[in-house]
Amino acid sequence: MDVLRVDDGLTGEERMVRDTVRAFVAEKITPRLAQWFEDGTFPARELAPELGKLGLLGMHLDGYGCAGASAVAYGVACRELEAADSGLRSFVSVQGSLAMAAIHRFGSEEQKTAWLPRMAAGEAIGCFGLTEPDRGSDPGDMRTRARRDGSDWVLDGAKMWITNGSVADVAVVWARVEDEGIRGFVVPTGTPGFSASDIHRKMSLRASVTSELVLDGVRLPGDAVLPGVTGLKGPLSCLSEARYGILWGAVGAGRTCYEAAVEYARTREQFGRPIGAFQLTQEKLAWMEVALGQAGLVALHIGRTKDEGRVTPQQVSFGKLANVRAAIDVAREARTILGANGITLEYPVIRHMNNLESVLTYEGTQEVHLLTLGKAITGLDAFR
Amino acid sequence: MDVLRVDDGLTGEERMVRDTVRAFVAEKITPRLAQWFEDGTFPARELAPELGKLGLLGMHLDGYGCAGASAVAYGVACRELEAADSGLRSFVSVQGSLAMAAIHRFGSEEQKTAWLPRMAAGEAIGCFGLTEPDRGSDPGDMRTRARRDGSDWVLDGAKMWITNGSVADVAVVWARVEDEGIRGFVVPTGTPGFSASDIHRKMSLRASVTSELVLDGVRLPGDAVLPGVTGLKGPLSCLSEARYGILWGAVGAGRTCYEAAVEYARTREQFGRPIGAFQLTQEKLAWMEVALGQAGLVALHIGRTKDEGRVTPQQVSFGKLANVRAAIDVAREARTILGANGITLEYPVIRHMNNLESVLTYEGTQEVHLLTLGKAITGLDAFR
Amino acid sequence: MDVLRVDDGLTGEERMVRDTVRAFVAEKITPRLAQWFEDGTFPARELAPELGKLGLLGMHLDGYGCAGASAVAYGVACRELEAADSGLRSFVSVQGSLAMAAIHRFGSEEQKTAWLPRMAAGEAIGCFGLTEPDRGSDPGDMRTRARRDGSDWVLDGAKMWITNGSVADVAVVWARVEDEGIRGFVVPTGTPGFSASDIHRKMSLRASVTSELVLDGVRLPGDAVLPGVTGLKGPLSCLSEARYGILWGAVGAGRTCYEAAVEYARTREQFGRPIGAFQLTQEKLAWMEVALGQAGLVALHIGRTKDEGRVTPQQVSFGKLANVRAAIDVAREARTILGANGITLEYPVIRHMNNLESVLTYEGTQEVHLLTLGKAITGLDAFR
Amino acid sequence: MDVLRVDDGLTGEERMVRDTVRAFVAEKITPRLAQWFEDGTFPARELAPELGKLGLLGMHLDGYGCAGASAVAYGVACRELEAADSGLRSFVSVQGSLAMAAIHRFGSEEQKTAWLPRMAAGEAIGCFGLTEPDRGSDPGDMRTRARRDGSDWVLDGAKMWITNGSVADVAVVWARVEDEGIRGFVVPTGTPGFSASDIHRKMSLRASVTSELVLDGVRLPGDAVLPGVTGLKGPLSCLSEARYGILWGAVGAGRTCYEAAVEYARTREQFGRPIGAFQLTQEKLAWMEVALGQAGLVALHIGRTKDEGRVTPQQVSFGKLANVRAAIDVAREARTILGANGITLEYPVIRHMNNLESVLTYEGTQEVHLLTLGKAITGLDAFR
Repeated sequence: MDVLRVDDGLTGEERMVRDTVRAFVAEKITPRLAQWFEDGTFPARELAPELGKLGLLGMHLDGYGCAGASAVAYGVACRELEAADSGLRSFVSVQGSLAMAAIHRFGSEEQKTAWLPRMAAGEAIGCFGLTEPDRGSDPGDMRTRARRDGSDWVLDGAKMWITNGSVADVAVVWARVEDEGIRGFVVPTGTPGFSASDIHRKMSLRASVTSELVLDGVRLPGDAVLPGVTGLKGPLSCLSEARYGILWGAVGAGRTCYEAAVEYARTREQFGRPIGAFQLTQEKLAWMEVALGQAGLVALHIGRTKDEGRVTPQQVSFGKLANVRAAIDVAREARTILGANGITLEYPVIRHMNNLESVLTYEGTQEVHLLTLGKAITGLDAFR
Repeated sequence: MDVLRVDDGLTGEERMVRDTVRAFVAEKITPRLAQWFEDGTFPARELAPELGKLGLLGMHLDGYGCAGASAVAYGVACRELEAADSGLRSFVSVQGSLAMAAIHRFGSEEQKTAWLPRMAAGEAIGCFGLTEPDRGSDPGDMRTRARRDGSDWVLDGAKMWITNGSVADVAVVWARVEDEGIRGFVVPTGTPGFSASDIHRKMSLRASVTSELVLDGVRLPGDAVLPGVTGLKGPLSCLSEARYGILWGAVGAGRTCYEAAVEYARTREQFGRPIGAFQLTQEKLAWMEVALGQAGLVALHIGRTKDEGRVTPQQVSFGKLANVRAAIDVAREARTILGANGITLEYPVIRHMNNLESVLTYEGTQEVHLLTLGKAITGLDAFR
Repeated sequence: MDVLRVDDGLTGEERMVRDTVRAFVAEKITPRLAQWFEDGTFPARELAPELGKLGLLGMHLDGYGCAGASAVAYGVACRELEAADSGLRSFVSVQGSLAMAAIHRFGSEEQKTAWLPRMAAGEAIGCFGLTEPDRGSDPGDMRTRARRDGSDWVLDGAKMWITNGSVADVAVVWARVEDEGIRGFVVPTGTPGFSASDIHRKMSLRASVTSELVLDGVRLPGDAVLPGVTGLKGPLSCLSEARYGILWGAVGAGRTCYEAAVEYARTREQFGRPIGAFQLTQEKLAWMEVALGQAGLVALHIGRTKDEGRVTPQQVSFGKLANVRAAIDVAREARTILGANGITLEYPVIRHMNNLESVLTYEGTQEVHLLTLGKAITGLDAFR
Repeated sequence: MDVLRVDDGLTGEERMVRDTVRAFVAEKITPRLAQWFEDGTFPARELAPELGKLGLLGMHLDGYGCAGASAVAYGVACRELEAADSGLRSFVSVQGSLAMAAIHRFGSEEQKTAWLPRMAAGEAIGCFGLTEPDRGSDPGDMRTRARRDGSDWVLDGAKMWITNGSVADVAVVWARVEDEGIRGFVVPTGTPGFSASDIHRKMSLRASVTSELVLDGVRLPGDAVLPGVTGLKGPLSCLSEARYGILWGAVGAGRTCYEAAVEYARTREQFGRPIGAFQLTQEKLAWMEVALGQAGLVALHIGRTKDEGRVTPQQVSFGKLANVRAAIDVAREARTILGANGITLEYPVIRHMNNLESVLTYEGTQEVHLLTLGKAITGLDAFR
C-alpha cells in the first residue's frame, strides 16, 4: 500500500510526529472507539490533557505554550488523529485551529495569556460559535447580536452544530455589532445566560460532542471582544485553518478504511479464494489506492505551500473538496468489500463512512467549495 | 414528484394495498423509528400481530390463512413498508418470503398446517437459516451438517446474519446431509441445542433483530425435514422470492429520502433563497427523480411479469441490482441536501442510507448480481 | 440480452414496424455507414423516397399521406433507425417531428396540402429553423426578424445547426414579429435571399447534413405564415415531439454499442480466455444491460402514456435526459471493451459514441432537462 | 487556472523546456491540427527534423546526439506536445521512449551509433513492433517468430497498431526465438519481406500514422538482434518508459480541453449571462480543476521519483491509470460545456476526447493497470 510512497517526502521530524500520534491513538483511542461511538460519548475532559501533553493542541501556533510546529507536521498529526476517528480530529481542530487560532491571531495579550497556555495543555477546552441554525453555509447572514451596554457587551442569539459546545470552558463567539459588523468575543461558558445543550441521535461523529449554544443576555466586560479583527474575514480565516486540518485528516480516515478493506480482502475467502483475488475487488482497491495517493500528494503540496507562506484560500478549498470526496468514496467502497461485517462497529469502516458525511458538510459543503473554485476559475460569482 | 406517474399503472386493489400500508406505517411505525434505531431495538413481538392483521405476512402465498395477493400487490406492500424502514420490510420478507415460503413450497401438509396459519397471523415468528459465518456469498459451501440418528435428525453448525433469529419461534434451517445434499429443516427454536445471540453495534438495520444461530446437537424428529426439495435450489428459490420484495422495497426507501430532500430543499433557505432554487440542488433532485422513476418502472415490470408466471431469476437479479443501487445513490445525495441536519435521526435519510448498506449486501451482493447478469449475457461463468 | 424482455410489451403491429425498419437498415444503411461517416456525407435525396415508402416520414401524423401510426410504433421506428445511426434518425425526426409536425399542427389547409404529401413520400425534404448562433439553449432570445411589407413578409436573420438545411426543399423558420411575438414561416428554400451552407469538420453526426441558414431579405407571400400559433409554444411543442423520438432513438444507439461489445467480448480472447469471461468485462456488460433495460421501459412507458394522450413535457424531458445519458454511458463503456478496435469505424461503437454527443446537446442539453425537472420538482425556476 | 500552482515546483530549466515546446506547438502545430485530423494525415517526415532540432527525440537519453534531459524535463515536454495532440506526443514517444530507448538500452555499440544520432536528429524515424493482432493486452502470447538460418535471422509474423509504422526507417521488432524466448531486432524497413499498411477510418489519433506490419521471411544479418536482453522484460521496460511519457502527456491533453471550456464558459452567453456564471458549469469546471491539479501533482511526483532512480513500474501504472482517466473525464465534460460547438474540430476538445480513447487503451488498458495495482496491493494475481 501507498504505491506512490508519499511519506518519503516527509522530514524526519514530521515522521516522528506521525509515529508518535499513530502510537498514541493505537494505544489509547482505537480500542475504545467502537464503544464510544455506539454510546454516543466522547471523553473530552479525559483526553484533552493527553493531547496537550503530546503538543497537539494549538500545535501550529507559536508561543503561549504551543508547539510551534510546521504546517506539514500539524497536517500529519491531523491525518493520524482522523485515522482513528473524525471526532477526535474535530476536537483537536476546534480547539487548536478555531478557538485557539482565533485568540492567537485576533486576541489581546491578556486574552492570549489567559487562555492559550491552559488550552494548549488541555486544561481548558474551547469551542467556536459561528454557525447558526438555518444558515449554515451563509455565516454573513448571522442573527446573533452583540450590543454595547455602558462598557459591557451583551450577547443574544444561538449557535448550532458547535463541536465541544457543552464541554467547553471558553467559547469564541461571533456576533453582529450594529454599525461595526461582525466581531468575535471570548465567552467563558460559566457566564450567566450562556447555555449549551447537546445534539443527540446523530449517526455521524457520535464520538464527538456537538451542541447548540444559547446566548440569552450574556453580559461580558468590554475587553471580551477580540480586538484584532472586524468583519467576516475574522471567522473565515479561522475556517481556512480548520479546513487545512481537514484536508489532511480526510486522508487518514480514508486510509483506515482502505487498510481494513485490504486486510479483509486478503484473508476473507469466498468461492475458495481470498476475495482480494477477484477482479471486482482488485478494481475497488486499485481505485482507492489512486484516490488516496492523489489525496496524499495534494495534502503534502498544500502543506509545503502553507509553510512557505504562499497558500491561498482557493488551494485550501481545493484540498478540502478533493480529499473529503476521495475519503468518502473510499469509505463507501471499503464498506462493500467487508460485506455484512462492514455494517458493524467491529470494523472501523462504517464509522468513518458516517463520520465523513459530517466532514463533507461542515467547514464548507462540497457545493460551497465547488463554487469557490468556480469563482476563482471563471471570475464569476454563482453563489446567489 | 413522480413525474412518470408510475403508480397510474396500479389497479384499484393494488392502490388500496398501498394506501393501507402507508397509513399503517405513518401511524404506528414512523413516529417511533428514530428511537428504535437509536436504541437498536425492534418490537417484533408487538408488531407481528398487527402486520398479520393487515395480511402482510406470507401475503403472496395461497391458503393456510395467507392473503393470496398478487405479486404486484405484495411488491407495493414491500415498497411502503421499506419506505418506513428496511428493517420493517426485512422482518416481513423473512417471515413471508423466506420462512413461510419455504414451508409453503417444500413443506409437508403437516408442516404447513402447523406453522403457516400462526405465522400468517403473526402469532409465530420465523427465521431462515442459510448464511454461515465466512461464506456469505457462497451458500453451496455450507458447513452446517444434518445426520440421521435412527429416525431422528441431528443438526450441528452455525448460521450468521439471521434476521429475526432471537425472536423467532421457528427456524427454517438448511444443512448438508451426507450423500443427499442440502436439505431444509423446520426447527422450533425451543429445541435443546438451538441458541440465538444477537449481533450488536450495527450501524445498519438497527431497528431489526440480527442474530447468530448455533446448532449444537439439535435433535429433531424425522418429519422435521422439508420433504419437497433437495439441493441448493431450495433455498435459492426462496432467496429469489425475498429479492423480489427487495427490488420493490428499495424504491420505497429511496422515495422517502427523496421526499425528505425535496421538502427540505423547498423550505430551507441559504443566501436568501430556498436551496431548491439553486442549480446544484435541482440537479441532485432531478437525478433522484430519474433514478426512482426508472426503479419504479423496473419493479412494476418485473411484478407484472411475475404475475404472468414468466419471471426469471435473471430479471430478479436485474431488479435487485438496479433498484438497490438507485436507492443507495438517492439516499447519499439526499443526505447532502439536508446539510448538517442530514446526520441526525430527526430526518429519515441517514437511517435509510445506512440500512441500504445491508440491503446492498444481503440476498446477493452487488457483485453477485453483476456476475449473474454477466453470465446470462455472455454465457460465461466469472464467479470463480 | 434484453433480460427484461421489454419488447414483449409491444403489439404485433409494433413488432412488425420494428422488424421492417430493422431489415431496411440492415440491408440498405448499415453496410454503407462507416464510409458515409468517414467521408462526412449523407445521401438524403436518395434515401428520402425509400424512407417515405416505408411510411417513416411524418409517421405519427394523420392524413395527408402520413401513416398515422401510434406513438409507440413511431418510437420503435426511431429506435431502429438510430440503432443504425443517429444521423439517420435525425433526418427522420427533422422531417417528421419538426418540419411536417409544425405544418400539420399549425399550418393552413393550403400549406398542408402543398407540402405534407410530398414530404411524407420523401419527394420534398424539410428542415426546421429555430436555433440561432450563440443562443442554442435559449430560443426565446432569437434575433431573426419577420416584418410585414404590404401583404408580404420579409425575413432577416440566421439559423445555426440546422439538420437537412442545405438539402431541404422547404424550411419552417421561426422569427420574431414586432408586437406579435414569434411566428413560424413556410419558406421554400429556392426563395431569393435564402441560403444554406454546411458545417464541416464535425466529429459527430458526420453522416448527417448540418447547415447554417442565412435569411437575407427573404420575401414571402402573406400566406407563408403558419396561422395556427403565435409565440414560443409553437416551436417548443415541436421540440417536444422531436425529443420523444430521441428518447426512443437513444435506446437503439445504445443497444447497437452493447451488442457489438457483447459479441466482441464473447469472441475476443486475451490471456487464453474470451474477455467476456473476465469479471471486469462482465461488470461493464451487466451495467449496460441495466441501463438499456431501464431506458427501454422508460421509452415504452412514455410511449404508452403519449398514446393515451396524457404525456407531459416533463415526462419527455425525463426520457430525453435519462435515455441519452444511458446511451452515451453505454457507448463509452462499449468502446473500451473493443480495445484498439474500438477506435475504428469498422465497429459501430465510436461512431455512436460521437453521435451521442450531439444527441446529448441538441433538443435541450442535459442541463436544460435537469433544470426542467428541477423546476417541476421544486416549483422553483433555476434557469437564470 | 492551476489553483495548486503545480508548475511552481519546476526548475528554471524545466520551465524553459515547457515554454519552448509550448511556443513551438502554438506556432507550427496547433493551427494545422484540425485539418490534419479531418484529413487523417500526419506530416511525420516534415516534423521529425524540427522535433529533433528542439532536442525532443530521445530527449531523456544520454549520448549519441540525445539531449540527456531529466525525467521531469522530458515529462514536461510530453505534456506540452500532447496539449497540442496525442498523436504528436505519440510520435515522439514511439521514437524516443520505445524505438530509441530499446536500442539505447539493449543495443550494441554499432546499433547505437548507426541509428541513435540520426533518430535524435529526426532524420530517421523509428517504430516499435510489439503488439500483435488479437493479443493486445497479452504480449507474452506473441506469434511472430525469428529463427536462425546460418548466421542470419529470418522473421515471420505480423504486428498491429504500430504508430509510425509506414513512415519508419527502422523498426524495433520483438519476436519469439525457439529455446531462447523473446528477442528484439533492428529491422530497416526497406528489408525485403517487410511491409506496412496503414489503418484507416480511425476516429482517434487521426493525426497520427498507425500501421500494420507484415514480416514475411524478413532476412536480417546476425547482428540485427539486440544483444542486451532476452525475454519479455525487454519490451516491457520500454513500455514503462512510454507510459511515463503518457502520464505527463495526458495532463496536457486534459489541460487544453479545460482551457477551451473555461474560455468558452467565460464568453458564451445564454439566458443573458456567461454560461460560466451558472452553477452547473462552475461545478464541471471545478471538478476539472481538481482532476488536473491532482494529475499534475502525480506527474511531478513520479517524475521526481524517476529522476532519483527510485521509480517503480507500479508507480508508472498508477500514473498512467489515474492521469488518463482524469484527462478523458475532463475532455468529456469540457465537450458538453462547448455545446453544439463542441462537436466540431474548430475547438480542440472533441479531438482530444477521441484521441484519449486510444491513450486509455494503448500501453496497458485501464483494466491492465487496475489489475497491476491490485496485484501490488493484495499480492494476488487476478489477470487470468
